[in-house]
Amino acid sequence: MNYKMILNILGWVLKIEAFCMLLPLVCAVCYGETAEMYVFLVCAFLCLIFGTVISPRRPENRVMYAREGFVAVALSWVLLSIFGALPFVFSKSIPNFIDAFFEIVSGFTTTGASILADVEALPKSILMWRSFSHWLGGMGVLVFLVAILPLSGSGNLFLLRAESPGPSVSKLVPRVKSTAKLLYIIYIAFTAMQIVLMLLGGEDLFTSLTLSFGTAGTGGFSILNSGIAGYSRYTQYIITIFMILFGVDFSLYYVLFFRKSTDIFKSTEFRSYIIIIAVSILLIFCNVRYLYPTAEETFRHSAFTVGSIITTTGYTTYDFNLWPQFSKTILVCLMFIGACAGSTGGGIKVSRIIILCKSIVKEIRLYAHPRTTLKLKMNKRTIEHETVRGVNVYMSAYACIFVGALLIISFDNFDFTTNFTAIAATINNIGPGLNMVGPMGNFSAFSPLSKIVMSICMLVGRLEIFPMLMLFSPYTWKK
Amino acid sequence: MNYKMILNILGWVLKIEAFCMLLPLVCAVCYGETAEMYVFLVCAFLCLIFGTVISPRRPENRVMYAREGFVAVALSWVLLSIFGALPFVFSKSIPNFIDAFFEIVSGFTTTGASILADVEALPKSILMWRSFSHWLGGMGVLVFLVAILPLSGSGNLFLLRAESPGPSVSKLVPRVKSTAKLLYIIYIAFTAMQIVLMLLGGEDLFTSLTLSFGTAGTGGFSILNSGIAGYSRYTQYIITIFMILFGVDFSLYYVLFFRKSTDIFKSTEFRSYIIIIAVSILLIFCNVRYLYPTAEETFRHSAFTVGSIITTTGYTTYDFNLWPQFSKTILVCLMFIGACAGSTGGGIKVSRIIILCKSIVKEIRLYAHPRTTLKLKMNKRTIEHETVRGVNVYMSAYACIFVGALLIISFDNFDFTTNFTAIAATINNIGPGLNMVGPMGNFSAFSPLSKIVMSICMLVGRLEIFPMLMLFSPYTWKK
Repeated sequence: MNYKMILNILGWVLKIEAFCMLLPLVCAVCYGETAEMYVFLVCAFLCLIFGTVISPRRPENRVMYAREGFVAVALSWVLLSIFGALPFVFSKSIPNFIDAFFEIVSGFTTTGASILADVEALPKSILMWRSFSHWLGGMGVLVFLVAILPLSGSGNLFLLRAESPGPSVSKLVPRVKSTAKLLYIIYIAFTAMQIVLMLLGGEDLFTSLTLSFGTAGTGGFSILNSGIAGYSRYTQYIITIFMILFGVDFSLYYVLFFRKSTDIFKSTEFRSYIIIIAVSILLIFCNVRYLYPTAEETFRHSAFTVGSIITTTGYTTYDFNLWPQFSKTILVCLMFIGACAGSTGGGIKVSRIIILCKSIVKEIRLYAHPRTTLKLKMNKRTIEHETVRGVNVYMSAYACIFVGALLIISFDNFDFTTNFTAIAATINNIGPGLNMVGPMGNFSAFSPLSKIVMSICMLVGRLEIFPMLMLFSPYTWKK
Repeated sequence: MNYKMILNILGWVLKIEAFCMLLPLVCAVCYGETAEMYVFLVCAFLCLIFGTVISPRRPENRVMYAREGFVAVALSWVLLSIFGALPFVFSKSIPNFIDAFFEIVSGFTTTGASILADVEALPKSILMWRSFSHWLGGMGVLVFLVAILPLSGSGNLFLLRAESPGPSVSKLVPRVKSTAKLLYIIYIAFTAMQIVLMLLGGEDLFTSLTLSFGTAGTGGFSILNSGIAGYSRYTQYIITIFMILFGVDFSLYYVLFFRKSTDIFKSTEFRSYIIIIAVSILLIFCNVRYLYPTAEETFRHSAFTVGSIITTTGYTTYDFNLWPQFSKTILVCLMFIGACAGSTGGGIKVSRIIILCKSIVKEIRLYAHPRTTLKLKMNKRTIEHETVRGVNVYMSAYACIFVGALLIISFDNFDFTTNFTAIAATINNIGPGLNMVGPMGNFSAFSPLSKIVMSICMLVGRLEIFPMLMLFSPYTWKK
């Protein structure tokens, strides 16, 4: 294990975090929040110092293998969250460290689950840090690192693989570094587009920035207690559209914009994603129509909620706890399906669901005609055996962690629906669940142990399980 | 597709059902239930006539392949249930056919979920038919058919494969027919032993027979509204022990009794099964201790409930809906784990869980050391690639059917916990769930559509998904 190289990466991650704290710092200056200004200054300084101390100079041996990549990514996210929680604690916005840790993990992992009952009481700069953490975590800090730092080639690939969501990583261009750069260019361009459109709709800069960060990262922290319910119809539609856009595989945007190809519509995953969204909106529309005076309002809430849940954003315009059970069950299913691989969204991912469904069909065909040779195909290409196996193991590990977490948080003696959806909402990086953790509720009532377990669930969900599992495996640390 | 052979098997299944109706008929005679006596006479006669009509003579071509086997098993179970529901309807014990169908499917699939609020109001002979259906479904009607009929060799294997639970079928002896016979011999011996022990404990013959049938098939229909709560401590312990015994792989009993070997304790599945039971009892014991006056009573209810749920029997001595959430969550987990493969129990099966866990560990090792070659092993033998793939596909199909069923029954607008555990209790062939379908509740409030969906879930669960799925696949019926 190349410990020096791992420390080097961790050092850089902290330096980037220090740099990122400049945005809330500027925000504090603009809004005259002097106390918070010092808090962010101190925190940025701490990150910088600690980052420099753990890795004072460039290591000579820069070779990294898979396990170094996974461990570096997992530790980076833990460290990011520990330091990211400090502004909450120091500013006394969230004095308890475990609560603050839960909140920032929820930010970086783009979950959007909150322990705060009254977000409007927080200083603007703290709200900005909360929302900005979504944007950073959405595309990934390590991807950013790969884009800007001169690391070795194979190491880059492992970092990207450990942080990017989906069953297999698609390199847009042969070089990993250029891939990371392109991903960030698309990400920034889309975010900027949303900010401009929101400004044009009459929202102020602070609102446009924070909500766009939350949308882009498919996070879901809002800056009002009412979520997105209080904004104009225009803003709600803009957010709906951009949530769905950020749930699409970014490599499709690369193909669309850089190679000027319309292959995007040939992608099985993209088509399935759109069909799932359309069918869900239709079913929920019919099911909740009686609750609203106009068809437009019914459609707006249905589309917004479906877009928010399938992309695992978690913004809400309406308390879907009040919807009939059928609509709520659809939402619970969407929580698990999640967005496309290679997007900023969480969940199991549409492509994994497709692979699983295809293997069921294959099995049935094999039972009927045992002597045929069948290959699983997607986008007209054979799905590699390794990918299928990876998806299956992912699902098993996912189920095990889900059950383990459910058991531990059930100690708090809340009802089954609350517990089940709390774990579903955290492991899939969504935010709100049902009952007590519904859109109008929050996670503050859980015990510290449950909050730690759910923080781990969020990290496990964001990094797609194995990087986190590897931290706890003896095989990783064996020579 | 060899249709004639399938019809031949269906014909025999109905003739066996006619024969089996003699037991409740005798019961009706003994208790002087004249109306029910005629009902069972008529129903037995109907089965006999219909069975003879669909297959008047032995087909010339007796060759069967996998798909014929699967289709024959799936259709047999549907037909068994349709004819098995008739005594309920004709005797007006359950006048509605869908309710009667649900009840008898619940019987044959050894689920034990009931739509009846007051079972004590039923005639004894009807109660006997209900409980006897558990015993018939437990080991399997097709296994019985294979044991007694002179079918062709390969066809036998496919029938056994389609009806026996678990990821792979172990033939005890080279001949399939002898395997089926041995299985029934062990099954009958254990059932007889339980009946004798219950009689010795002072229960009457009717009680001993019905409860032993329910235990042996891991079914769970009781003959009192209070379930098993009203019986003596001795009887409760006897049932606990036999439930756990019937949840063990029957091939281990063959090894133990016929080959006089103690290899049973070397079986990974058996050891895991015992460990899961012991740990669950311990955890629940500690969690519910405060509810009961003595440690003995706490232990009795904990052990009984754990044994009942993991073996998917579903008998209850106490309304576990009133237990704290932690214990209830353990029970929900046990519902999914289920008993051992090759037992009469349902659920996912311990061996499948072991295979899934082993593949997770293998994956973590592979991430850490990509160049090592690892093989999954169980009982010191390599698990075949086909078996692992089968388990994975099984899990995917299981999840899909679970979600689909959950969505449909959510139309009834009951709470999420009720719906989720209702599907869990039916697809895993357990019986009681939580909330409305808890030990003191029943399934009568669901709509006819939901009852049909849950009947399908029970059949899907009992036949381990693929035989039922194949009925609906176009590939099965293609030439």
